[in-house]
Amino acid sequence: MDQDRPPVEADLSPGQVAGGWRAGDPAGARKFAGLGGLPLEYGGTLPDVTIAYETWGRLNAAADNAVLICHALTGDAHVVGPAGPGQPTPGWWDGLIPTYLNPDDWFVVAANVLGGCQGSTGPSSQAPDGQAWGSRFPAITIRDQVAAEASLADQLGIDRWAAVIGGSMGGMRALEWPLLYPDRVATSVVLASTGYATAEQIAWCAPQLAAIESDPHWFGGDYYATGKAPVAGLGIARRIAHVTYRSEYELATRFGRDPQGDGRFAVESYLDHHATKLAQRFDAGSYVVLTRAMNSHDVGRDRGGLSEALSGLKARLVVAAVDSDRLYPPRLSAELAEASTGPLHLVKSPYGHDGFLLELDQVGHLIAEALIR
Amino acid sequence: MDQDRPPVEADLSPGQVAGGWRAGDPAGARKFAGLGGLPLEYGGTLPDVTIAYETWGRLNAAADNAVLICHALTGDAHVVGPAGPGQPTPGWWDGLIPTYLNPDDWFVVAANVLGGCQGSTGPSSQAPDGQAWGSRFPAITIRDQVAAEASLADQLGIDRWAAVIGGSMGGMRALEWPLLYPDRVATSVVLASTGYATAEQIAWCAPQLAAIESDPHWFGGDYYATGKAPVAGLGIARRIAHVTYRSEYELATRFGRDPQGDGRFAVESYLDHHATKLAQRFDAGSYVVLTRAMNSHDVGRDRGGLSEALSGLKARLVVAAVDSDRLYPPRLSAELAEASTGPLHLVKSPYGHDGFLLELDQVGHLIAEALIR
Repeated sequence: MDQDRPPVEADLSPGQVAGGWRAGDPAGARKFAGLGGLPLEYGGTLPDVTIAYETWGRLNAAADNAVLICHALTGDAHVVGPAGPGQPTPGWWDGLIPTYLNPDDWFVVAANVLGGCQGSTGPSSQAPDGQAWGSRFPAITIRDQVAAEASLADQLGIDRWAAVIGGSMGGMRALEWPLLYPDRVATSVVLASTGYATAEQIAWCAPQLAAIESDPHWFGGDYYATGKAPVAGLGIARRIAHVTYRSEYELATRFGRDPQGDGRFAVESYLDHHATKLAQRFDAGSYVVLTRAMNSHDVGRDRGGLSEALSGLKARLVVAAVDSDRLYPPRLSAELAEASTGPLHLVKSPYGHDGFLLELDQVGHLIAEALIR
Repeated sequence: MDQDRPPVEADLSPGQVAGGWRAGDPAGARKFAGLGGLPLEYGGTLPDVTIAYETWGRLNAAADNAVLICHALTGDAHVVGPAGPGQPTPGWWDGLIPTYLNPDDWFVVAANVLGGCQGSTGPSSQAPDGQAWGSRFPAITIRDQVAAEASLADQLGIDRWAAVIGGSMGGMRALEWPLLYPDRVATSVVLASTGYATAEQIAWCAPQLAAIESDPHWFGGDYYATGKAPVAGLGIARRIAHVTYRSEYELATRFGRDPQGDGRFAVESYLDHHATKLAQRFDAGSYVVLTRAMNSHDVGRDRGGLSEALSGLKARLVVAAVDSDRLYPPRLSAELAEASTGPLHLVKSPYGHDGFLLELDQVGHLIAEALIR
């Protein structure tokens, strides 16, 4: 997911350390919740879990105005607002608040995902021995990420979300939420997402994982103390991912065969720019952990399949696909709508998967309508 | 392009030398033509060019029964026939000859492309100083590749091809042929190809090039004497390319979320297999040179654009797209058909781009019909 547009030049120093927020960096608007140990779906307990989060508005006396926003793969808790010290990027969904989610009415919470690199416990965080988790960070699932968010909700005094909203990987959490905690979600809004990672989504992840894990600065995942980082591998992963986030039509009409003037094509420069930018702000270890978590996604697992899992859903499910999305093609959203006997909303966009971020007006209206009680 | 199907395990030894044929290896069915120096489109002359080729049938007395088959990116001159010493793979279009192109009637020629690694001069070939060309191999274009084929045709006594046939990158050459040599081609058959590399095609190549060129065994392109090869980088490139060659539908129905039993998904094992196999038989330096040649492809260059270039075409142009092809979407073939005022043929296939190889019956009939004089 990315809405960065201008193909600007940028360079990473060779060997520049990994991107991502580290304890001791300026916190920006982050708050932190210590959740203690978190039992994991694949077994074992991850100790001393911290979740970084950001909020807008206030929880009302009835505690029934809370909305959780779930970010996508390389997003974070900073849904809206400027960049600043400790916060490398402006909000990834800028404009959503206050226009479509008014903090006078809603208590909006966004948490950095478990396994991430913006203040929540992930592979770049310190393990109990004081060293980065690195390769010792356990495999986690989307359900583990939701369990961490539920523990955060407990701390915030939120028994039940008025809505859980997410797109792409965030949509996976928004879908798992009412399945794991049927009494804690009134409405789930699942945008440009799926009930399970498909063969092709897994296939696109394969060269991304291989690129990071074969980078000589990966060091088997334990590069944090080396002063180096698998910047090249993460950049390759980003180039692949970025093309899947957009549409053939957009790339053709926006870039065509335009030269960049330095021997590159404009579209190459554009991808180079996104590769460099991601490596500056994101941790490759988190990218690997979160990618594997997405691959694990299957709401039907241990629930008798997708239809069975969704047939008894207590929450209202609002499902929307982007018509030009080829990474999460609309048929995957249609399956969710059908299994939950709800309508399928279509966001019209020329941009592909990223349309869920770029078509703010359509998506914002959908969210605002979903919140009318 | 690849039609290999079973997900079989295979491993490359760490540091295994580059794939591809080398002078001194068993020749298999290859013949060799020394073409002397070849002037290049970007300037300069490539000295001592050799083109490896294979033939079926005989040139008739009128020399009017010659057909040229142009292979795709990782293909070679071995269109049909078994694997054997010096020939790592069976024919990539097995079945085309003799069923649809009978060597009793036709003199069929297939040349390994200039820049390739199966006996034609490429970056792994010896330069005049006895060392591999490596990083010194010049940037070449599709037009240079066609010029080399024209020089081969001169040697073979072929003034005019009854047909030049190619798919994907081979289709680029089949299209350039009658534009560069209007009097030397009766019919061009352009399958699953395009008049120019699109922004998205260039975009998909970007992480492939980055993966090879950032592999520590790439050595700036001069790895041939190191005893190592950028096997990991080439494997990453292949994984990316392979997904673009297939369709989302095929991957979903064939692999779904099936586990492989070793912690990988079946689709991951399938891509690993193709990555390993390509690294064993193909040279990474050729992959880079040929990828850049494809990016250069634009029949409208220096000809006033695509429509102008094709409007005066003397040859008959037979254009076919695969309906499920997302790498060379049918609209690109439609542009060719429209500009040359010919019909657009659609190959029906669930497989995506590789359908031009896999739907042999449809494609074979199209070729046989194109050859009826």
